[in-house]
Amino acid sequence: MTDAIAILGGTGDQGLGLALRFARAGRPVWIGSRVPERARTAAEKVREATGSRQVEGLDNAQATARAPLVILSVPFEHTAGTLKSTREALTSGQIVVSMGVPLASSVGGAAAHMVGVWQGSCAELVASLLPAGVHAVSAFQNVSAHRLQALDQPVECDVVVSGAKQPRSEVMALCDLVPGLRAVDGGPLANARIVESITALLIGLNIRYRAPEGIGLRFTGFPEESD
Amino acid sequence: MTDAIAILGGTGDQGLGLALRFARAGRPVWIGSRVPERARTAAEKVREATGSRQVEGLDNAQATARAPLVILSVPFEHTAGTLKSTREALTSGQIVVSMGVPLASSVGGAAAHMVGVWQGSCAELVASLLPAGVHAVSAFQNVSAHRLQALDQPVECDVVVSGAKQPRSEVMALCDLVPGLRAVDGGPLANARIVESITALLIGLNIRYRAPEGIGLRFTGFPEESD
Repeated sequence: MTDAIAILGGTGDQGLGLALRFARAGRPVWIGSRVPERARTAAEKVREATGSRQVEGLDNAQATARAPLVILSVPFEHTAGTLKSTREALTSGQIVVSMGVPLASSVGGAAAHMVGVWQGSCAELVASLLPAGVHAVSAFQNVSAHRLQALDQPVECDVVVSGAKQPRSEVMALCDLVPGLRAVDGGPLANARIVESITALLIGLNIRYRAPEGIGLRFTGFPEESD
Repeated sequence: MTDAIAILGGTGDQGLGLALRFARAGRPVWIGSRVPERARTAAEKVREATGSRQVEGLDNAQATARAPLVILSVPFEHTAGTLKSTREALTSGQIVVSMGVPLASSVGGAAAHMVGVWQGSCAELVASLLPAGVHAVSAFQNVSAHRLQALDQPVECDVVVSGAKQPRSEVMALCDLVPGLRAVDGGPLANARIVESITALLIGLNIRYRAPEGIGLRFTGFPEESD
């Protein structure tokens, strides 16, 4: 289906949050997992919460094969493994959205710290692993899972979207589907280096300010605003 | 004077903006420059704009010697040189605020790109160059110079302040002097790595969105808020 969205790692907190929001917006959502049974359980939950009937749980490769847009919502340390297991299912023209963050917790460190990635960022690592013609876009790293899952409330967060122009525009348009989410044009994919690190800063703020719902990010001063 | 603020590089756009705001708030401000004549011209401008009489232009070392709090507002490539020239004037207990950002423009690259700093950030480089007992704090990197200078308008920007607890609190309190500026507890100094890079992101946003007044940053979802 041309407007379907696959969410690999859609059983995790943040992936599930996006699944809920996109299903509520009426888009077909394929939840992918390494363990299809878990994906089916998550899909059932999303169907119940949203009333949508176009939500299914699949293994990662099946979900990937059935959507033009694939959101990679797995912990950073599973990025390469997940892409290797779905590589055969990816075809030219598809978009893969990287929302991973190289937190130091991926190697046993603190979640408010980062590890260095040779390519510069998780999103650029993703780009380096995609078959030719498949586009990597960076987005959604800074959106609190808690806020995404609170379907009765607007998310109130900006999403910085980075990547090549055309796929970037398509992902920016996705943000309009979710109340309170605003897309910000983050320019080239390499800017994911900065956007990903903001997640580590937000995690530290959540701890220092005891903010269980998650601190969010807003940019101010866009010319069309009156602020 | 115990409540004086020295601003080294106070003749530049951002330093001058802070000088205007702190002078308007009634704090004595010593503008430092490598070229004292330029500092005196800037001080005259600040006195005229604010009506304050406690604003003076000095060389960097003189300004440093006369204030418990010293804001380093020089281009990144002048960080080490400025600190070397003022080192003799620094005494234990003083606070040096780093607001520099290692933009790639410091080595002829793009202002929306960064260069790597061995210590991790400009603020940590500053810390490594200070005499024992002088505290480094990171702050003010993400505040638009244009907004700071528009004295009739609130700045509408969050300032992430990082460093050891006591000096960090003192710098956070400074933010309360400026209408629309809000201090956010940024934790340990090493978080300056993230905060500094946000400036590069904001510069890119200013270009893409043609925002001459400068895009600002706000965090949302602090527990005391109702948002």
